[in-house]
Amino acid sequence: MTATTGFARDDQSEEELRREAEVAGGLAGAVRGLVDAVIRTEADEAELDDVRRQVDALAERLRARQLPGPYGVRIGDGGRIRNWGNAVVGVRNAVAPPLVIERVEGRVRSEFALGAAYEGPPGLVHGGVCALVLDQILGEAATAGGHPGMTGTLTLRYRRPTALGELCAEAEIDRVEGVKAIVRGRLMTPDREPTVEAEGIFILPRWARGQLAAT
Amino acid sequence: MTATTGFARDDQSEEELRREAEVAGGLAGAVRGLVDAVIRTEADEAELDDVRRQVDALAERLRARQLPGPYGVRIGDGGRIRNWGNAVVGVRNAVAPPLVIERVEGRVRSEFALGAAYEGPPGLVHGGVCALVLDQILGEAATAGGHPGMTGTLTLRYRRPTALGELCAEAEIDRVEGVKAIVRGRLMTPDREPTVEAEGIFILPRWARGQLAAT
Repeated sequence: MTATTGFARDDQSEEELRREAEVAGGLAGAVRGLVDAVIRTEADEAELDDVRRQVDALAERLRARQLPGPYGVRIGDGGRIRNWGNAVVGVRNAVAPPLVIERVEGRVRSEFALGAAYEGPPGLVHGGVCALVLDQILGEAATAGGHPGMTGTLTLRYRRPTALGELCAEAEIDRVEGVKAIVRGRLMTPDREPTVEAEGIFILPRWARGQLAAT
Repeated sequence: MTATTGFARDDQSEEELRREAEVAGGLAGAVRGLVDAVIRTEADEAELDDVRRQVDALAERLRARQLPGPYGVRIGDGGRIRNWGNAVVGVRNAVAPPLVIERVEGRVRSEFALGAAYEGPPGLVHGGVCALVLDQILGEAATAGGHPGMTGTLTLRYRRPTALGELCAEAEIDRVEGVKAIVRGRLMTPDREPTVEAEGIFILPRWARGQLAAT
């Protein structure tokens, strides 16, 4: 796979984007269902082998025309960011739940559900998945507050176990020190009891500053 | 989905386990390929819609007989742990790369590759995916050193960008303080240049202590 470090220019119209999100996103959603089914199925060996052959054949069809490397991040008019391959929010990526993150008064928040594919201890969300989700949420809070950046440090405090199922998360910039945005956030049960608290420092590297300015 | 907090007893023979890992693990591997293909495909809408219908049908077949909830963690003879649904190491879980973690002289290590499904910034591993992988590696180092536990705190320092592709990671217990194991680890390029450093505190909660003792 060719690594394509760098932001690409996104020239698609809103209507084209809407269609692609619906069709490719719909397929990714179906694959999320398949991921869950493979973990939990008790079908017999012959059935699993046959499904495997068909999955291979479907992947082969999709690969007949494909990008040479990862999806990357495309930037359109007005700073619109299309990160559909992203491991947390990517609508084309079945590894991503995917989170839909909304901005509300200088804060970002998301409500989502994590199923069997995100398990660590029995019945619980993997501690690393809590970190994965919070890293994205904190990063988006930095961006929403006008300080986009990459993670410099991330500190997580696990207050109590996080059960699989419905969850929510939120984050906001605590303060800005030069090129660093210090962001706080938390993962919570639906009734807003925090299970994991996070603090992160986000910094925009020089190479990205130049590229973002050029798009 | 029913959350099934608690460890289950694993009575399968080594031979049965080997077969299931091969067949179900092979299917999960095929689904990993499909996840990557969905992110990167440039196939047209009609093709994506048709593949979607077939993916839905395959998931439906697998769901004809399935576990009522997540896979859980099963514990067999000699403390053998089967966590095949795990989000990092689960052989049945297409969200997991999956990592194979080996124990070498009081340290754990793993070599693995992360492709398009783990992207954050363009061409780079998502910062949260680095955290996800390191949480698992550090937890296994705690277990390997005789101090299994759940993550209490996790601190990550991002030293440089982590490119998608071949990577390795390692961790070891730094010290033990009462019920806490303090563990250090790092994510590295194939030539062992650290990209992300981690320190974690792992604690075995009381409910898990009782359950592990009872298996």
